[in-house]
Amino acid sequence: MRITKARLAHIVFESDDWASKTFDIVLLFLIFGSILVAILDSVASLRVKYGEIFLILEWMFTILFSIEYGLRVWLSRKPSNYIFSFFGMVDLLAILPTYVSFFVVNSQFLTVVRALRLLRVIRILKLGRYVAEAEYLTRSLKASSHKIMIFIGFVVTIVLIMGTLMFIIEGPQHGFTSIPVGMYWAIVTLTTVGFGDITPVTALGQFVSSIIMLLGYAIIAVPTGIVSSEMASQKKKMDNEASTYCPSCERTGLSKADYYCRYCGERMP
Amino acid sequence: MRITKARLAHIVFESDDWASKTFDIVLLFLIFGSILVAILDSVASLRVKYGEIFLILEWMFTILFSIEYGLRVWLSRKPSNYIFSFFGMVDLLAILPTYVSFFVVNSQFLTVVRALRLLRVIRILKLGRYVAEAEYLTRSLKASSHKIMIFIGFVVTIVLIMGTLMFIIEGPQHGFTSIPVGMYWAIVTLTTVGFGDITPVTALGQFVSSIIMLLGYAIIAVPTGIVSSEMASQKKKMDNEASTYCPSCERTGLSKADYYCRYCGERMP
Amino acid sequence: MRITKARLAHIVFESDDWASKTFDIVLLFLIFGSILVAILDSVASLRVKYGEIFLILEWMFTILFSIEYGLRVWLSRKPSNYIFSFFGMVDLLAILPTYVSFFVVNSQFLTVVRALRLLRVIRILKLGRYVAEAEYLTRSLKASSHKIMIFIGFVVTIVLIMGTLMFIIEGPQHGFTSIPVGMYWAIVTLTTVGFGDITPVTALGQFVSSIIMLLGYAIIAVPTGIVSSEMASQKKKMDNEASTYCPSCERTGLSKADYYCRYCGERMP
Amino acid sequence: MRITKARLAHIVFESDDWASKTFDIVLLFLIFGSILVAILDSVASLRVKYGEIFLILEWMFTILFSIEYGLRVWLSRKPSNYIFSFFGMVDLLAILPTYVSFFVVNSQFLTVVRALRLLRVIRILKLGRYVAEAEYLTRSLKASSHKIMIFIGFVVTIVLIMGTLMFIIEGPQHGFTSIPVGMYWAIVTLTTVGFGDITPVTALGQFVSSIIMLLGYAIIAVPTGIVSSEMASQKKKMDNEASTYCPSCERTGLSKADYYCRYCGERMP
Repeated sequence: MRITKARLAHIVFESDDWASKTFDIVLLFLIFGSILVAILDSVASLRVKYGEIFLILEWMFTILFSIEYGLRVWLSRKPSNYIFSFFGMVDLLAILPTYVSFFVVNSQFLTVVRALRLLRVIRILKLGRYVAEAEYLTRSLKASSHKIMIFIGFVVTIVLIMGTLMFIIEGPQHGFTSIPVGMYWAIVTLTTVGFGDITPVTALGQFVSSIIMLLGYAIIAVPTGIVSSEMASQKKKMDNEASTYCPSCERTGLSKADYYCRYCGERMP
Repeated sequence: MRITKARLAHIVFESDDWASKTFDIVLLFLIFGSILVAILDSVASLRVKYGEIFLILEWMFTILFSIEYGLRVWLSRKPSNYIFSFFGMVDLLAILPTYVSFFVVNSQFLTVVRALRLLRVIRILKLGRYVAEAEYLTRSLKASSHKIMIFIGFVVTIVLIMGTLMFIIEGPQHGFTSIPVGMYWAIVTLTTVGFGDITPVTALGQFVSSIIMLLGYAIIAVPTGIVSSEMASQKKKMDNEASTYCPSCERTGLSKADYYCRYCGERMP
Repeated sequence: MRITKARLAHIVFESDDWASKTFDIVLLFLIFGSILVAILDSVASLRVKYGEIFLILEWMFTILFSIEYGLRVWLSRKPSNYIFSFFGMVDLLAILPTYVSFFVVNSQFLTVVRALRLLRVIRILKLGRYVAEAEYLTRSLKASSHKIMIFIGFVVTIVLIMGTLMFIIEGPQHGFTSIPVGMYWAIVTLTTVGFGDITPVTALGQFVSSIIMLLGYAIIAVPTGIVSSEMASQKKKMDNEASTYCPSCERTGLSKADYYCRYCGERMP
Repeated sequence: MRITKARLAHIVFESDDWASKTFDIVLLFLIFGSILVAILDSVASLRVKYGEIFLILEWMFTILFSIEYGLRVWLSRKPSNYIFSFFGMVDLLAILPTYVSFFVVNSQFLTVVRALRLLRVIRILKLGRYVAEAEYLTRSLKASSHKIMIFIGFVVTIVLIMGTLMFIIEGPQHGFTSIPVGMYWAIVTLTTVGFGDITPVTALGQFVSSIIMLLGYAIIAVPTGIVSSEMASQKKKMDNEASTYCPSCERTGLSKADYYCRYCGERMP
């Protein structure tokens, strides 16, 4: 059996038969493998021991990804469309760092770019069964993005005022060395993270902090409320879209499980 | 083209043509700029280097804001109304600190007042497209404010009892030096911030803390529940308001599920 | 004007005219005052300075509360009913500690009992306008208490298993000195408080911790979901109770703001 | 009265009369007792004092559980079914560690296995009144599990990218010794636990942290929203199931708002 270009394109771009599914799964393993190697390589003790093996594996992954990238460019109907698409850029960013590291010595920034490989997983999983749920989440978040923007603006205002206040109350001698540090502390506190690297020491500082914390406790409800109510309304909309209507009285909002229209009593088709 | 007083008032107070929009945007930049300068000025290392530039910029901003304030007073139909309005006070507070600092040496409190400049952003953004969403949030929060007040009262009672309890169990030798400090710790714990500056050391103290934490975990649900259900009901109300109208009495706010207009009794189409 | 016993009982127990409202407000101030004194008395530096004044104030508050308690007993129709009621016990507990401290030297436990005075505020505020909202919250919490019990049981199981696991992984040398300490740490982590007094040091410990944290992040949604959905349903029920019905077609669920029945078109009464 | 095998099986497996209920309650006490002994045994100071008593109690519990296990195997209609069922395995795991510890010296791992005894409580409580609520919770969680999986995947991606970023920004000298440690820190921060064992020191690190924290604050709403909306919809479904039934075809699950039975088309009363 000779593999034609059309067959190869099917294997690379689709995911509906044995060969194309295997291609996707192998790719998934390669992506997770390359990320695992990058993670392990950052551990000093492992780097000393297995540094060379990691380098060889990294090059192996890069070459395989390069072949895959070449295939995608070659097999696309309009290569330029693929190259400048979001996933085309991600694919390129997945292989570039290793080649660049050949010229640039010890560039740590490339490690971050390498972590972007994880984004490639999205495309492969997109073919799976999680699409509908992901779309539902995305829709809900998009619908509530305006409200969340206002909320973030509101939070930033509180952070600025509280950060300035604490900088003045506690001062540099208690770790609040500047307004930006005060704002960092205010964010740490308002989000209830509470590292404890900088903490109020004076009575007044602790009193103001208490107010910030209670405030944070109360307003944590807001984004949750926004997203929850948006999700509930999205859910309803999707349920409605899946519902049907009565051809006799033309009323909508009927369940497909109904035998008779609940408004006019006519038998449903 | 000579600019009349009416035209100037339009530029300053409205935001519907090129000139008035530009005025707003320039003002926005000035506000953010003046806040940025105040923030950077608080960083010791930058103050040493650029302290003089910051001072000059601060005076420049203050003079521009003073001119703007003067314009607003002059252009208002009833200047006293503007001066004693909320935003009038904010505008005055935005320029006063710099002048006061001329007489009072090294007054850090003025920096906080300066941070209030951020409030001025609200008025300008009010003209933007986020008003409907902001109103929705405000309405939801107002509707749930009574319930949140009770909740805060309930939290304060727990905080007082738990703070007293921990003060007695752990005592000053473990950092719980007084009931106010115990209450500060209780707030830090109940809101799940958890700085770790004061922590229980005795077995009994850790046991009581565990109960406080589980309590906090359980009651964090309450404000969320309040706001969520309030938002859902606000959303419903707003959806209803937008829904349909009666062609007979031309009243809006009717549900599409209604058979008859609930205001004039006419059969709905 | 001579004050009769009936008039006095009215002043003490009711809250509908000038005299009885004043009585409640004075009582509120006394309660908050006595608590404030107890709090300030715990601050070492203030105790040294004003210790004697605090003692005198404390005795003054206690004598006033004793008179009030005596009045309530005397004015009750069945004194034994009042004495053994919940608020009767609280009123007694509010005055006992001071008298007991006369015999028992330096008993700190009494301070906690004194903090219970805050509970007395509830009765007085009960007469206020917050009753409906408080009832709504209580109803929602009661309706969801069964589910929250299961949830707490589930959390305790996770805490036991995770605490044991971390005790074995990290061991006493990293602060996990026993299973109870491990469980304390698990609660601190699962509730996202995160004091940082005990933290995992080994790689395995940090990995297991990460799983606990993600778990805690996911299950924090459960109590919120329970309370939210319960509140939404309570809200609906209360809205329904407040709604009216059409006397013509006898359908319920109509808003009192409607002019005509939306089902049969009949004019609403 | 001689106890037959059938009677004994009833006592062991059912829970509807005096004897079988007593059996369950005794078993509950034994399970909690054995766990309490394991917990107390881990406290060094108690182990020194009461170590021998704990050992004797542990053996006593194990022997009783062994007898119970033997009874369950003997009384089952198909013993192999019981042995390989989930609870059969748990019952075996509850007694094995003590016997194994006879041969293996000082094996701490067995303590974790012993903690699994708590799972046995589930079976006994299953007979209680909490089943309906537990089922409701389980149904809601199952229905939202897909969405939560996507969400966890999304969180892991953020954690990987942020962990790598912070490892590069802060570096080993500030505690971020490797990417896995950076990821551990990112999880600690994103879940708002915030131990404070590793904290950003550089200005850039604090800025990136602030973004992570605000992100975590915003996305904490997502799982809550998912579970809340799922619970609301489950609640509705269950309410509907309980609602009304058609007197003509005797089918349940009809809404009281329906005009005609949606199954047989008969007019509803």
